[in-house]
Amino acid sequence: MELTQKDKEFLLNSIREINDFPQPGIVFRDITTLLNNKEAFNFLMKYLKERYKSYNLDFIAGIESRGFIFGAALAHALDIRFVPIRKKGKLPYTTISEKYSLEYGFSEIEIHIDAFSELDNPKVLLIDDLIATGGTAIAAANLIKQAKANLVESCFIINLKELQGSKELEKIAPIHCILNL
Amino acid sequence: MELTQKDKEFLLNSIREINDFPQPGIVFRDITTLLNNKEAFNFLMKYLKERYKSYNLDFIAGIESRGFIFGAALAHALDIRFVPIRKKGKLPYTTISEKYSLEYGFSEIEIHIDAFSELDNPKVLLIDDLIATGGTAIAAANLIKQAKANLVESCFIINLKELQGSKELEKIAPIHCILNL
Repeated sequence: MELTQKDKEFLLNSIREINDFPQPGIVFRDITTLLNNKEAFNFLMKYLKERYKSYNLDFIAGIESRGFIFGAALAHALDIRFVPIRKKGKLPYTTISEKYSLEYGFSEIEIHIDAFSELDNPKVLLIDDLIATGGTAIAAANLIKQAKANLVESCFIINLKELQGSKELEKIAPIHCILNL
Repeated sequence: MELTQKDKEFLLNSIREINDFPQPGIVFRDITTLLNNKEAFNFLMKYLKERYKSYNLDFIAGIESRGFIFGAALAHALDIRFVPIRKKGKLPYTTISEKYSLEYGFSEIEIHIDAFSELDNPKVLLIDDLIATGGTAIAAANLIKQAKANLVESCFIINLKELQGSKELEKIAPIHCILNL
């Protein structure tokens, strides 16, 4: 199933633009209006299910917090496991962590060390709502590899392609972006 | 569908106990092992879908972050809308916020002011993984009412009933807990 230009416009129109959030000059893409649009949410999830059902995935890994929303819904729709990748200090068991740079300073995300341990070389899809500079996504992709899983693809609803994150992430594993803005 | 004692034990056994997290003396219930157990995750979601399909819900509201996982999966399974209730400063549009007490100091959660505005008196289910003292859940329930929705039930996978949060929340709206510990 390929999305038409009209399908993409339908999805894009369900996403609200908020100027100057979280800081001046940024146009924030608010996916809560997509989740609040029954047709758009259902259409997006059906598309994702259709795309990924042939991948024979074992796990979906979602990045905190909006990646949890799309990731867990898709994991249940595909009847597979869900793994949360969280901000430092949130996961209760032993973790692997990865730092990444922000505009000022750095941040850190973590995955449980046994997140994928039940299966041998399991197939994992990484999901988040948006990729911009790619810092978080690249750190997440590295964590999945360090946890000994096979990252078969990373999927984002929105790609802010001028910020080049998708290009960088593509060097690590295949990437699929639904809306390239 | 009523869960048997055996069903409950199956779910409970899929949840890992972590001693002294996030602080000494606390036994943390780690639901990542449930999400990582294909049978347990599927069984739980099927149970929730079966229970709530007759409620004719319009929305599921999930509390950040673990409530997003179960809430969004259930919303998609029921083909209804999902509303995130988030920590202060995370939602980009105009919000209603509610403070609640912690052991030391307070915290604050928010909901978008137009979260339920498309429908008149919509039916909402609130969901989170666990209720303890109930501070967050009661604040979330109040937010849903302030946003002019009908909170028909609050659902938790785990209720730490000695901490009395479920009793307090029950004064606001019906509550359903799967595992009462």
